[in-house]
Amino acid sequence: MAILVVGSVGYDTVETAAGSRKDALGGSATFFSVSGSYFAPVGMVAVVGEDFTTESVDLLKAHEVDVSGLQRAPGKTFRWSGVYGRDDVNSRETLDTQLNVFADFDPRLSPDHRSLPYLFLANIDPELQLNVLGQMEERPKLVAADTMNFWIDGKMEALNEVVRSVDVLFVDENEIRQLAAAHVGAVNVVRAARFIQNMGPETVIVKRGDHGLIQFMGDSIFAAPAYPLDTVVDPTGAGDSFAGGFVGYLAATGDLGPEAFRRAAVVGSVMGSFAVESFSVERLGALKQTDIAARFRDFGNISQFAPLQSNETLPWRDGAAAL
Amino acid sequence: MAILVVGSVGYDTVETAAGSRKDALGGSATFFSVSGSYFAPVGMVAVVGEDFTTESVDLLKAHEVDVSGLQRAPGKTFRWSGVYGRDDVNSRETLDTQLNVFADFDPRLSPDHRSLPYLFLANIDPELQLNVLGQMEERPKLVAADTMNFWIDGKMEALNEVVRSVDVLFVDENEIRQLAAAHVGAVNVVRAARFIQNMGPETVIVKRGDHGLIQFMGDSIFAAPAYPLDTVVDPTGAGDSFAGGFVGYLAATGDLGPEAFRRAAVVGSVMGSFAVESFSVERLGALKQTDIAARFRDFGNISQFAPLQSNETLPWRDGAAAL
Repeated sequence: MAILVVGSVGYDTVETAAGSRKDALGGSATFFSVSGSYFAPVGMVAVVGEDFTTESVDLLKAHEVDVSGLQRAPGKTFRWSGVYGRDDVNSRETLDTQLNVFADFDPRLSPDHRSLPYLFLANIDPELQLNVLGQMEERPKLVAADTMNFWIDGKMEALNEVVRSVDVLFVDENEIRQLAAAHVGAVNVVRAARFIQNMGPETVIVKRGDHGLIQFMGDSIFAAPAYPLDTVVDPTGAGDSFAGGFVGYLAATGDLGPEAFRRAAVVGSVMGSFAVESFSVERLGALKQTDIAARFRDFGNISQFAPLQSNETLPWRDGAAAL
Repeated sequence: MAILVVGSVGYDTVETAAGSRKDALGGSATFFSVSGSYFAPVGMVAVVGEDFTTESVDLLKAHEVDVSGLQRAPGKTFRWSGVYGRDDVNSRETLDTQLNVFADFDPRLSPDHRSLPYLFLANIDPELQLNVLGQMEERPKLVAADTMNFWIDGKMEALNEVVRSVDVLFVDENEIRQLAAAHVGAVNVVRAARFIQNMGPETVIVKRGDHGLIQFMGDSIFAAPAYPLDTVVDPTGAGDSFAGGFVGYLAATGDLGPEAFRRAAVVGSVMGSFAVESFSVERLGALKQTDIAARFRDFGNISQFAPLQSNETLPWRDGAAAL
């Protein structure tokens, strides 16, 4: 079943401990689409300027991303530039953001797109996220959304409405605490996630960069480490690649049960780990089925331990007892 | 089989988002001993002053900790005071450290202690750690050690010798990178751990506070989340409680294979999670066997997902292929 993503497509200029790139293809919809396209057909709604290159379009087409919703507007393509901490890949500083044609982005869904069963609202203005959701012919089978602190600060009301309307919310640790704090004051991640779940989304996925994730789904918690990498080249796009693998896996299986959600989170982590091994989508866009399956298996190897059998207990010192 | 721990015993004055405590029983050897005592007999070598209370000794004795190596010296007991970040339990600021009798700590092992098969060198001056190791009659079956950035900065040579001499090294993420950086320059956690393993310890366990851990054992990596808690009262002692559960499990089973090490890391995480649910050892010291087993099982529930069966592959979009 096919997925619709609405988000940004742009050119990133980044500097990391591993080097730098100027005007490399990026944007939330790009990373999501390339990642998700391994698992299910993806249609993209986004806007680019007159300077958007044929090579960039060809790359998306090579992944059979449906680019019929990629509007081209007069002006320049969205550009972002930033630098990542040399000692902490989880920290980054934005040097410059040029919205360009993205400033007037007015997502218009085609009749085909309005009936797609899986929808990912990437990190854009929550008013646009609501606008897109409102254009769908019927409520999609699954709606997932991402957001960021910028919208928590500036568009709280619309963002609350987005939160109330989605099935799955992706947020980072600081964002979920900030989001919950606006309603209930300072609480830790677990309490914040429970609060946000009560607002609407059955599932809240708290991303922790190279420290993994916690997935809150109904009453159940799934916590997973990140895939340990000995080289991280560029963290840009990790979260959207995660979301692409996550929604891609669910769309491919059509299974929205708890076991499928756990596997989806691992597939997402695997795709995120590929994304950060290069600049742009250089590595993410050049994967074989065996690469992904091998890392998924390896993820199992690094995170599994022998559970207690039903008739088994932990060893205990003779006489050890509570006071 | 019995464990010997050499470390600090003291009184902590802490302030956290949950409240504060003045002169609460603490110290690395205290948390380790109480935690480990559920699984195996623990002997403690440490020093306290004339003001160390009968209640504190009784608490250790109630856990059948062998306190014959707890020296009492003229002067006051070691005291530490600190405050934890309200928004980040992983960050803390030391307000005051009074070494008191700990300044002249000269660990002397009794003949009984010299032959114990499991040794934990808690975070003390690496010269003392080496001194203790040298007093052992023969090389223990397992030697584990903890350290901190203070010693990396100030006692690099002795610390290198400790690293070369132990089987298991516990460090946090910044410490291992700092430790490796002194030899090979800035590297990420995975590379830093590999480098430190090459110096000696077969196993390096990188602690990430409430983000879990990565255990590097030989060529194998085990990554585990932290047990998600909705209330963290006081993070003090989490690492030593982890070590107590870890070494305790290994000593109780006598098994030093890779599967046992993974379970040991989970037992350690479970004990660390109990430690932070109260000030001092209030919760850690009042556990039943069923509490620990239940949380161990629950840890499995939150971290396991369905691996691919041998004949199974991940779902794949028709035609999806690398460029």
